[in-house]
Amino acid sequence: MDRVEIVEVGPRDGLQNLPDVIPVAERIAFVDRLIAAGLKRIEIGSFVSPKAVPQMADTAAVVAGIKRVPGLRLMALVPNARGASDAMAAGLDELEFVLSVSDDHNLANVRRTTDQSIAELEEVCTAIDPDKKLTLRFGLATSFHCPFAGYTEEARTLSVIERVLKIREGVEIALADTTGKAHPVNVRYLVEKALKTFGQSARFAFHGHDTSGFGIANVMAAYAAGIRIFDGAAAGLGGCPFAPGASGNIATEDIVNLFERMGVATGVDMPRLLEAADMAAEFPGAIPGSHSRLLPRQAA
Amino acid sequence: MDRVEIVEVGPRDGLQNLPDVIPVAERIAFVDRLIAAGLKRIEIGSFVSPKAVPQMADTAAVVAGIKRVPGLRLMALVPNARGASDAMAAGLDELEFVLSVSDDHNLANVRRTTDQSIAELEEVCTAIDPDKKLTLRFGLATSFHCPFAGYTEEARTLSVIERVLKIREGVEIALADTTGKAHPVNVRYLVEKALKTFGQSARFAFHGHDTSGFGIANVMAAYAAGIRIFDGAAAGLGGCPFAPGASGNIATEDIVNLFERMGVATGVDMPRLLEAADMAAEFPGAIPGSHSRLLPRQAA
Repeated sequence: MDRVEIVEVGPRDGLQNLPDVIPVAERIAFVDRLIAAGLKRIEIGSFVSPKAVPQMADTAAVVAGIKRVPGLRLMALVPNARGASDAMAAGLDELEFVLSVSDDHNLANVRRTTDQSIAELEEVCTAIDPDKKLTLRFGLATSFHCPFAGYTEEARTLSVIERVLKIREGVEIALADTTGKAHPVNVRYLVEKALKTFGQSARFAFHGHDTSGFGIANVMAAYAAGIRIFDGAAAGLGGCPFAPGASGNIATEDIVNLFERMGVATGVDMPRLLEAADMAAEFPGAIPGSHSRLLPRQAA
Repeated sequence: MDRVEIVEVGPRDGLQNLPDVIPVAERIAFVDRLIAAGLKRIEIGSFVSPKAVPQMADTAAVVAGIKRVPGLRLMALVPNARGASDAMAAGLDELEFVLSVSDDHNLANVRRTTDQSIAELEEVCTAIDPDKKLTLRFGLATSFHCPFAGYTEEARTLSVIERVLKIREGVEIALADTTGKAHPVNVRYLVEKALKTFGQSARFAFHGHDTSGFGIANVMAAYAAGIRIFDGAAAGLGGCPFAPGASGNIATEDIVNLFERMGVATGVDMPRLLEAADMAAEFPGAIPGSHSRLLPRQAA
């Protein structure tokens, strides 16, 4: 039986886009429900400036508060060496560094060119002890499409992959459809090339958004091209309050439903996942984007 | 450049599921907007008992009221010989007969086994003059999944296709994912087999629902397997009021957006289609299910 690995990013990518700051106790309760659903990889928050992203303050307290189970790996987004150091001190198992393949998007986000971000990433990674049981993940935003520059050239994305793999082999690379405007042919071709060229040097994940309703189609395309690691957010959180329903992460429960219906194991307990998704959907200002949550719970 | 044909079913499959009866003048205005968007095949209503489906009464008046343009083909669903006769008298170009591949669903819907419905279909088709410029479409509900019996055996669907094609070769066959629980592997395998076996004797269309969020993924699967005719409903209407947001047709604008982004021509003008979809979304009791309608209208 084929199986896939689901990375739940709701506690980070979902909650950081909510208008309000969710109290630490509720963040812990949310993560506990995700763990109860069998999710083994959870992006629990980020170690960024609490002034810039107050929603992600106190991520260390969230980590300290959740009930660990065997096999659980907690990931956090870290922007720099200090964030990496804080995350390791807090006991994180996986660190995610994000940079944009598109210069325009990277400049808008962090006021650096992609080249500058790659150089910084190299510095930060050099400072991290490679012997630790720490998973590094490089999240490549705008791998397929940029809100400013339109479709990203395949050659550009492949070149960025090549360069970040020179920093550290064996990492996980998340190809992100940041805008949700990648289409399935797009995804399939790029993923096939990436796996063919770099499949021996890295593990690849697909991180999509459901902006255009292409989320599940893109997951299928990435799966057909060989990816077996998929990011989702319970209830499809991650939407921008200024475009209701339009730009959330792909709902974890929709990804799980897809694979389970296809006979591909996810290790996730759907009824329990839906309990976590229900909680996520009720956070103030949440814009749920899930289909599976709306189905009759006893469906055939 | 590859191209696909879009069949807009909103005026039938969408409006018949609304709680209220939409006045004829509004139905005409809706169809006129769809025509203005460049849609050339529109399922405009059905010729069934107005007592059973009051939403579809006066379909002849709708047909009489719309502004025809060159190349436009209007389709109606007809349940029997009388409906066919009424539809032809009203000037319809295409008649759709629906039966369910699954006995359980067919019995629940029309109190006949699939065999009995096939026998009736043969009688009705024998009475229709084959020389007329009339397109016949056989809609095969539950081709992939039945709400009562679960997944439909491929052999069963292929056998029903074979039998209905013995009634009349050269028709259009719409493989319908009635419940929206087909998954992309499902769709791809069945469509590939259907086209391989019967592709010379019929044209195939895919009619999906977005119940599970697999709608666009299933469209992609059907397209990859060779189908070039797709049903959609503007604004994703067709949802059941008792399962909000959960079971509409795939939104026409999402299908058009998918193909246009992939460089596949649809002949549809997106801004004008969105105007029609906006109108559909505002019908009383409508449960829109579209993604494209929620995107910024000037998006890159």
